[in-house]
Amino acid sequence: MKQSQLFGKTTKDVSKDETSINAQYLIRGGFVDKSMAGVYTYLPLGKRVLSKIENIIREEMDAIGGQEILMPALMKKEDWQITGRWDIDVMMKVKTFFDKEYGLGWTHEEVVTPLAKKYAKSYKNFPFSLYQIQTKFRSEKRAKSGILRGREFSMKDLYSFHTNEKDLDEFYDQSKDAYFKVFDRVGIKDKTYLTFASGGDFSKYSHEFQTLTSVGEDIIYICDKCKIAVNQEIIEDLKGSCPECGNKDLKEEKAIETGNIFKLKTRFTEAFNFKFLDEKGKENVVLMGCYGMGPSRLMGTIVELSNDKNGIIWPRSIAPYQVHLVSIGKDEKVITEAEKMYESLQKEKIEVLYDDRNESAGVKFKDSDLIGIPLRIVISNKTLEKDSVEIKRRNEDGFELIKIDKIMNFEF
Amino acid sequence: MKQSQLFGKTTKDVSKDETSINAQYLIRGGFVDKSMAGVYTYLPLGKRVLSKIENIIREEMDAIGGQEILMPALMKKEDWQITGRWDIDVMMKVKTFFDKEYGLGWTHEEVVTPLAKKYAKSYKNFPFSLYQIQTKFRSEKRAKSGILRGREFSMKDLYSFHTNEKDLDEFYDQSKDAYFKVFDRVGIKDKTYLTFASGGDFSKYSHEFQTLTSVGEDIIYICDKCKIAVNQEIIEDLKGSCPECGNKDLKEEKAIETGNIFKLKTRFTEAFNFKFLDEKGKENVVLMGCYGMGPSRLMGTIVELSNDKNGIIWPRSIAPYQVHLVSIGKDEKVITEAEKMYESLQKEKIEVLYDDRNESAGVKFKDSDLIGIPLRIVISNKTLEKDSVEIKRRNEDGFELIKIDKIMNFEF
Repeated sequence: MKQSQLFGKTTKDVSKDETSINAQYLIRGGFVDKSMAGVYTYLPLGKRVLSKIENIIREEMDAIGGQEILMPALMKKEDWQITGRWDIDVMMKVKTFFDKEYGLGWTHEEVVTPLAKKYAKSYKNFPFSLYQIQTKFRSEKRAKSGILRGREFSMKDLYSFHTNEKDLDEFYDQSKDAYFKVFDRVGIKDKTYLTFASGGDFSKYSHEFQTLTSVGEDIIYICDKCKIAVNQEIIEDLKGSCPECGNKDLKEEKAIETGNIFKLKTRFTEAFNFKFLDEKGKENVVLMGCYGMGPSRLMGTIVELSNDKNGIIWPRSIAPYQVHLVSIGKDEKVITEAEKMYESLQKEKIEVLYDDRNESAGVKFKDSDLIGIPLRIVISNKTLEKDSVEIKRRNEDGFELIKIDKIMNFEF
Repeated sequence: MKQSQLFGKTTKDVSKDETSINAQYLIRGGFVDKSMAGVYTYLPLGKRVLSKIENIIREEMDAIGGQEILMPALMKKEDWQITGRWDIDVMMKVKTFFDKEYGLGWTHEEVVTPLAKKYAKSYKNFPFSLYQIQTKFRSEKRAKSGILRGREFSMKDLYSFHTNEKDLDEFYDQSKDAYFKVFDRVGIKDKTYLTFASGGDFSKYSHEFQTLTSVGEDIIYICDKCKIAVNQEIIEDLKGSCPECGNKDLKEEKAIETGNIFKLKTRFTEAFNFKFLDEKGKENVVLMGCYGMGPSRLMGTIVELSNDKNGIIWPRSIAPYQVHLVSIGKDEKVITEAEKMYESLQKEKIEVLYDDRNESAGVKFKDSDLIGIPLRIVISNKTLEKDSVEIKRRNEDGFELIKIDKIMNFEF
């Protein structure tokens, strides 16, 4: 992509309401545009990042046997009355001109449970798990922290269905591993803790995945021995000790919830009378788990964790482009060489953003740091004197000169 | 994918309200599930088809320079009041518990115009075009015809921005070609006509893409000489003649609108006071075009056009899987060979659905025809006697026997 044609310019002009780093950098870098409080447009750079995160999550959900579906955002009022959640504050309510009323999905148990019930009747149909990556809506009174807590956002929600607790437990453990694979691939595993949280009426605990960051709204207590954490909401019940090893020397930290998994057991299957016939022809209530992870929230969290005073530092796996090619100056030779390199990189299927704008070196470098593509290639008169280009990694200070005719041997 | 584990069984049990072929076959085949009137869940098979259609559209929009973004579904009431469209019937309105009111997107001129205005100020920034593939909501009083006309559906909407009419005209013509490339790739080009329709206040004509089908709600008049059509709404104005050649011998047909393109010119840019500075530093109003195409509607249309009495016949480009591998009987040898072939096909990156269910040949063939995967490979005792498998194309009657050790040379 030629930067002169890229929609979404870098800007210094960000509202002071946007106090979080992710909002500041994502807006300044031209990744997102704030449409209104808690509601953002993903511009071309931001859409690329979001799609990459979604694809990583998709691959890991597929790997544990999750089957992708797409449920509607419009929801039947009657189904939410069955579970007693129609009048919960977070639910946005929709009206048509002919006075039909819908709920707008902020979670999908009320859709997926009756759906699964239609198709799975015998123990032979179990276990199975369904997921979607879809837009969710939440009536948050105070939308804040950029794309970390929006009124409209991208969500992956997976639901699993089982005939017995052992099977649910096994899948639940697999899902933990899958979540950590995602965190690993997007570069935030080191800062992310499996965190014990309240299990509600049906389970002792649920688990959150909490990622350490100063903008986090949650307080967690870390056990350094077990590398797990406890959410503030249950720390008193646990008398301040680690639920795994009993260690009382826990460290208080601020964190953001980047995922959660929950053994719902029969909470929703009972409400919808979802039963299966077992081997003996007897009816039993189906057991259920739910597993959430928000791609847009992940994107915001990554920006919070991976930046410096000049801008974002994208991990390679989710960077909008792999290479930022920057030409300096208006000399014909520079432009010719830059165009040639742009073509070559594209031919090699290397994703490249080419800053072909008629701007000063200062402006170009500043924008390049802000946008945060992992690798920068600079072509200027100075580098061409040595038949070379300058290569710099966004997360390192130094740079190296590489001969132009050797560039395609470079490990991008 | 092993069919025994696939979520979404085939069924005979479809409501009589569903009179259209697409709804009947898509529900019976386990592609979609009706959540309520006009609102469907895409099950794993259906989600695969929908994603493939979306990707084809994405590629063709990218090819004409469209830049993908993702705008929100929640919309600012004030922006719709500016254009006078807040109280249009199709708009679903959303309320939060704290009495904030939003519109729910059925089109996005009211979002994209102020967005584009923020970033494009000089003639140097033009032309450009932005698109998204996103869920749209419409308050249709009578949702009908399966996924052809829903209350919630997938839509690709592209918007282009120009400094002069010539430039708008050129892009508009490019978009026509891009649309026909999509129709070609999904197998409905032969039945699809560029159709002259009303241009509103700003243009003489707009253009629709109308695909011939008996469930279509539109009446069009085809000129066989020019291979174009005229929508009923303007045929009287044209005194029943072709706008290109004047031919009066037009053929009346039923069709469904599978795309539309419209020169909006200054309809929205004036409302939002979206101007650019020209080469002389003078302010001018930006010109605009919009270009819509619904992936879910395309999917329904393809089913309407490509089926027989036994089920769907998917074009290869958008089939949920390329190969339907079917094992017949319970003999160990059959199962071993089928499993081996399943592995081999997967290794070759051929998308395969493997019917490993413990069902009769009759049930399996019936389901296979209903699901409509382009190529079927059958392994049975009978075929193994000849060290062969039986290969049948869904759109042909005959089949051929192919030696198992030659199967990987076969052109899938």
